Amino acid sequence: MAAPTQTRQIALASRPQGWPTDENFRLETVDLPELGDGEILVHNTVMSVDPYMRGRMNDVKSYIPPFQIDAPLDGGAVGEVIASKSSEIAVGQRVVHGLGWREYAVLPAERASVIDAEAAPESSYLSVLGMPGLTAYVGLTRIAEMKEGDVVFVSGAAGAVGSLVGQIAKALGASRVIGSAGSQEKVDRLLELGFDAAFNYKDGPVRDSLKAAAPDGIDVYFDNVGGDHLEAAISRLNTFGRVAMCGAIAQYNATEATPAPRNLALAIGKCLTLRGFVVGQYADVSPEYRERAAGWLADGTIRFDETVRDGLENAPQAFIDLLAGANTGKMLVRL
Amino acid sequence: MAAPTQTRQIALASRPQGWPTDENFRLETVDLPELGDGEILVHNTVMSVDPYMRGRMNDVKSYIPPFQIDAPLDGGAVGEVIASKSSEIAVGQRVVHGLGWREYAVLPAERASVIDAEAAPESSYLSVLGMPGLTAYVGLTRIAEMKEGDVVFVSGAAGAVGSLVGQIAKALGASRVIGSAGSQEKVDRLLELGFDAAFNYKDGPVRDSLKAAAPDGIDVYFDNVGGDHLEAAISRLNTFGRVAMCGAIAQYNATEATPAPRNLALAIGKCLTLRGFVVGQYADVSPEYRERAAGWLADGTIRFDETVRDGLENAPQAFIDLLAGANTGKMLVRL
Repeated sequence: MAAPTQTRQIALASRPQGWPTDENFRLETVDLPELGDGEILVHNTVMSVDPYMRGRMNDVKSYIPPFQIDAPLDGGAVGEVIASKSSEIAVGQRVVHGLGWREYAVLPAERASVIDAEAAPESSYLSVLGMPGLTAYVGLTRIAEMKEGDVVFVSGAAGAVGSLVGQIAKALGASRVIGSAGSQEKVDRLLELGFDAAFNYKDGPVRDSLKAAAPDGIDVYFDNVGGDHLEAAISRLNTFGRVAMCGAIAQYNATEATPAPRNLALAIGKCLTLRGFVVGQYADVSPEYRERAAGWLADGTIRFDETVRDGLENAPQAFIDLLAGANTGKMLVRL
Repeated sequence: MAAPTQTRQIALASRPQGWPTDENFRLETVDLPELGDGEILVHNTVMSVDPYMRGRMNDVKSYIPPFQIDAPLDGGAVGEVIASKSSEIAVGQRVVHGLGWREYAVLPAERASVIDAEAAPESSYLSVLGMPGLTAYVGLTRIAEMKEGDVVFVSGAAGAVGSLVGQIAKALGASRVIGSAGSQEKVDRLLELGFDAAFNYKDGPVRDSLKAAAPDGIDVYFDNVGGDHLEAAISRLNTFGRVAMCGAIAQYNATEATPAPRNLALAIGKCLTLRGFVVGQYADVSPEYRERAAGWLADGTIRFDETVRDGLENAPQAFIDLLAGANTGKMLVRL
């Protein structure tokens, strides 16, 4: 088979104001660059859409540069190497890399990692064995410094990161794990996954739901949401409690400054720690995590869900639905 | 001289709503209890008024119980032992203890610490060698984990804690120390004390003043204030920046929930840590601090200011003035 010379890809047509819409994205076909020395050509088979991508659609300096208008989006993807000018990676190998949102990608071999698609489904390298899993593990062990016996609360608990946070916390000896999610179906799923308690945050004030679920307070809050969840958690945290600030999805589409936790000063008397993180800073934890995760997967300690859409042309809608919480577990697009 | 049988003291007459007034306090004369075994009678010579006392005037559960209506207030004080039924502390010794707001106090000897009034003025045991000094040191070294070369910003910088934060930060190798205070006189004093930059937060938006004073950002923020100072600091903090949350004097007299930092979600991408503390949890650091502070005092590395009022009857006004920022350095009442 002759190597393709073109790829379909999704470009950023305009910056979303508030919630993204179809019009912010453009499906286009472009020529592929010629393969240079040390480069590989990958046929992507599955790509990731993640909440953090919303932040990159704004023209704001952050820990990663913003997406550029008229340039293709990027993000995690898995695919098969179909051409190679690298001595490190051969045709036929499966890799995970950072050039999603397109069907074919040309990139330096050192920016791809070979995966073992026999050991685990290739999509798992975008979820439990990939960035979301490492995020959950780093947040619990390095940021929140979770200890055995802690009561752990996680928001966005039915999401890719959240569902792993709860299960990993149990595996690490949490005495009680509480999750919040946005539908009764998700709540039911969390209880199946071994959460001790779960609530639908749309059923009433988060503060009340959390108090009922955590009568003795909480020690760790893994925050994927911000807003009223963070405020409620600060009220419920015990002395020396810790917050891993991972995401603030409640705020990603806000066009004005959003409410901050009005009770933040409670952190003084309660000796709380709030610590933000981005998983890219903790790549060194990856080998440790992959080894433990492999064990947890093998013995059934952790399970993971996927919500899969088909076709590159549906990737923008998958992303929009992700921000609205339409997924249970990892939202993926099969290409 | 026969030991006194009565003492004047200040009781809480009513709980302040917002800013405290004279009417919330009552000067009264009460009988002293008889001295029990192991107890001492102390003639207080100087007492402390501190911002944290405002919180104890509300009927709110916190890290220390609230003051009770019609009961005497308490807080740090220094005095001379004039009667003793303790084998540990003798008549004539000077002690620091927790029963201020009164002229004479009866207490168990184990709740007093003997001080060396030859080595340092007795009032210094309520400021640089006492709780404010330890607070500054713990906040920098244990909470903010200040490193050599850090740029450090402190609010309330002309106060008892703040002025020591700046000087100790310099002593510990900060590359630049910035302070905010509420008058030009205080700003001038900070520069005399060795701050690299200082600004009057009443001169304009804190965000603008801080940006001008810290063009390369800050690494550590020691927060005595909360509110817009905290928001400005979050904007200026560099990646892996740290906030020691020590106080929120801007909010102590608020009758409604006060604005929280609307930019708190920046903590995620910048990997910030915000950590609250109360110095009482770090009493074990005291010997280390006292040893270092003695050296810094001896060689002139750190200096400290006092604002002294005279007479127990003026203690409530001293406290009210403290909350309004009338002090430079430690606010004390000589009895």
